Amino acid sequence: MSGMVHRSVEIVEVSPRDGLQSEDTILDARTKIELITRAVDAGIRRVEVCSFVNPKRVPQMADAEEVLAGLPARDDVTYIGLVLNQRGFERAVEAGLKEINVVAITTETFAQRNQGTTSEGTVAAFEAIAPLAIEAGIRPTLTVSASFGCPYEGEVPVERVVEIARRGAEAGAAEIALADSIGAAVPTDVTERLRAAREVIGGTALRAHFHNTRNTGLANAYAAVEVGVDALDASLGGIGGCPFAPNATGNIPTEDLVYLLDRMGVDTGLDLQALADVVPWIETQLGKRVPGLLSKAGLFPAA
Amino acid sequence: MSGMVHRSVEIVEVSPRDGLQSEDTILDARTKIELITRAVDAGIRRVEVCSFVNPKRVPQMADAEEVLAGLPARDDVTYIGLVLNQRGFERAVEAGLKEINVVAITTETFAQRNQGTTSEGTVAAFEAIAPLAIEAGIRPTLTVSASFGCPYEGEVPVERVVEIARRGAEAGAAEIALADSIGAAVPTDVTERLRAAREVIGGTALRAHFHNTRNTGLANAYAAVEVGVDALDASLGGIGGCPFAPNATGNIPTEDLVYLLDRMGVDTGLDLQALADVVPWIETQLGKRVPGLLSKAGLFPAA
Repeated sequence: MSGMVHRSVEIVEVSPRDGLQSEDTILDARTKIELITRAVDAGIRRVEVCSFVNPKRVPQMADAEEVLAGLPARDDVTYIGLVLNQRGFERAVEAGLKEINVVAITTETFAQRNQGTTSEGTVAAFEAIAPLAIEAGIRPTLTVSASFGCPYEGEVPVERVVEIARRGAEAGAAEIALADSIGAAVPTDVTERLRAAREVIGGTALRAHFHNTRNTGLANAYAAVEVGVDALDASLGGIGGCPFAPNATGNIPTEDLVYLLDRMGVDTGLDLQALADVVPWIETQLGKRVPGLLSKAGLFPAA
Repeated sequence: MSGMVHRSVEIVEVSPRDGLQSEDTILDARTKIELITRAVDAGIRRVEVCSFVNPKRVPQMADAEEVLAGLPARDDVTYIGLVLNQRGFERAVEAGLKEINVVAITTETFAQRNQGTTSEGTVAAFEAIAPLAIEAGIRPTLTVSASFGCPYEGEVPVERVVEIARRGAEAGAAEIALADSIGAAVPTDVTERLRAAREVIGGTALRAHFHNTRNTGLANAYAAVEVGVDALDASLGGIGGCPFAPNATGNIPTEDLVYLLDRMGVDTGLDLQALADVVPWIETQLGKRVPGLLSKAGLFPAA
């Protein structure tokens, strides 16, 4: 509430993609569109809505084109599609997306298991796609997955994270994200790695992506804001994870994050009560309780 | 893992008191003693083991004397009893406790509902008890409850928190704690209020007590460590709350906090794996899943 200069952070809502892709319950396209619309109604202006991946591997995302076709066209909202390779990029172009998020992976084992290629292969894929995207009028962003630890190899050298971030920026990324895909990070890791990435990406926007697997997610988001991150990924209700990372349960809950930021005087442009009100609806759709806490406790002070 | 000077924080385990007092399942004295013993075996050296309150109001704590009588006598472990008034203090003396934690409350409505007195009455009670405790060889500590918000009155002026902390230190408190009894705080609140308290309590030790009600608990603990707090309360599994504060669910989980601190290079003297191993046992005793996440996800990197 005090002691901090007023500033702003952009929230990228990832529940329709990273959230839903690891839920057992598969929502139909109409329900996904309603989720996205409810998020936008609460003020969200960037949403990761789908991924263009092999539907045999991620059946939750098989209806990407159907979801995109049904979204309201709004000049003030950016819909983002996740892309892993050239084939995915072509689908994103065909679907008329204006922003894609490409994933590079820091370690060999995770790259093999997640994308069937090498770590270098994932970086090279972005370097090939980025100029094509720019030429097609599509903003390419790069997420550096396993930036804070690998589910298979353990510790990840900061040098590898920085090297991928640097190459991403050089290839034309509109934004670089460091992702804690398995929820292993602690605030000092966040401070160190975001600062190191910032040094090599120059004026390119910097985003962070946290999971609350070990309850450190909101502390990490706070640390990221303290070092001046431009954007944070979050997922309404804290749903989500990663199907290829064992025990990676849940993105940081959007509504809990925005409560923290609101009370800190950090502007997100979002309507906190409206965000919290979406969560019981998500629980109904998924048929289960979700990890987010604010929607159970209520806002403070009470409205 | 890097970028931070090595330092230490003391963890005060509060699951036997703040944890269990708001659980529907009442554990018997033998089981409480086993919980405390398991915590001590994992390295805990200060434990809030009971409260000396009206058993009609808090039946979970009715067996305080029985629990104390059954605890192993160890010179290197401090057992703490919660005290609200003169009658409670007398019971603590009779039971042979070496440390008591007295609770003062910042607001009138919360003081009335929790302790049937005024805010001033709660402060005056400590001022009366502290010199008697010191004379009896008992360390008196003071927890300033609702330091970051009141469940009934909303915002709490920082001036009131600071005033109570100042009077507590003057009365001879061995330690002053600021408590977020309802889990409303965010990191900027923590920074502001702990700093303000530190200014008026001089060399008196400073402790903080957080609840994870709105998912901000570990971010707040991180902020507290950043401003140099001496000790943090935490509860194995994140059990607990406050029976008089609506929706106040769960202290910050000890094992999740220690994961965060360990990875930050902050020494607690605790065995993280041993802490995590207590949690499934607690779940068995309570017959339910608890909020702590580390025991489900496992340590990183894997052992």
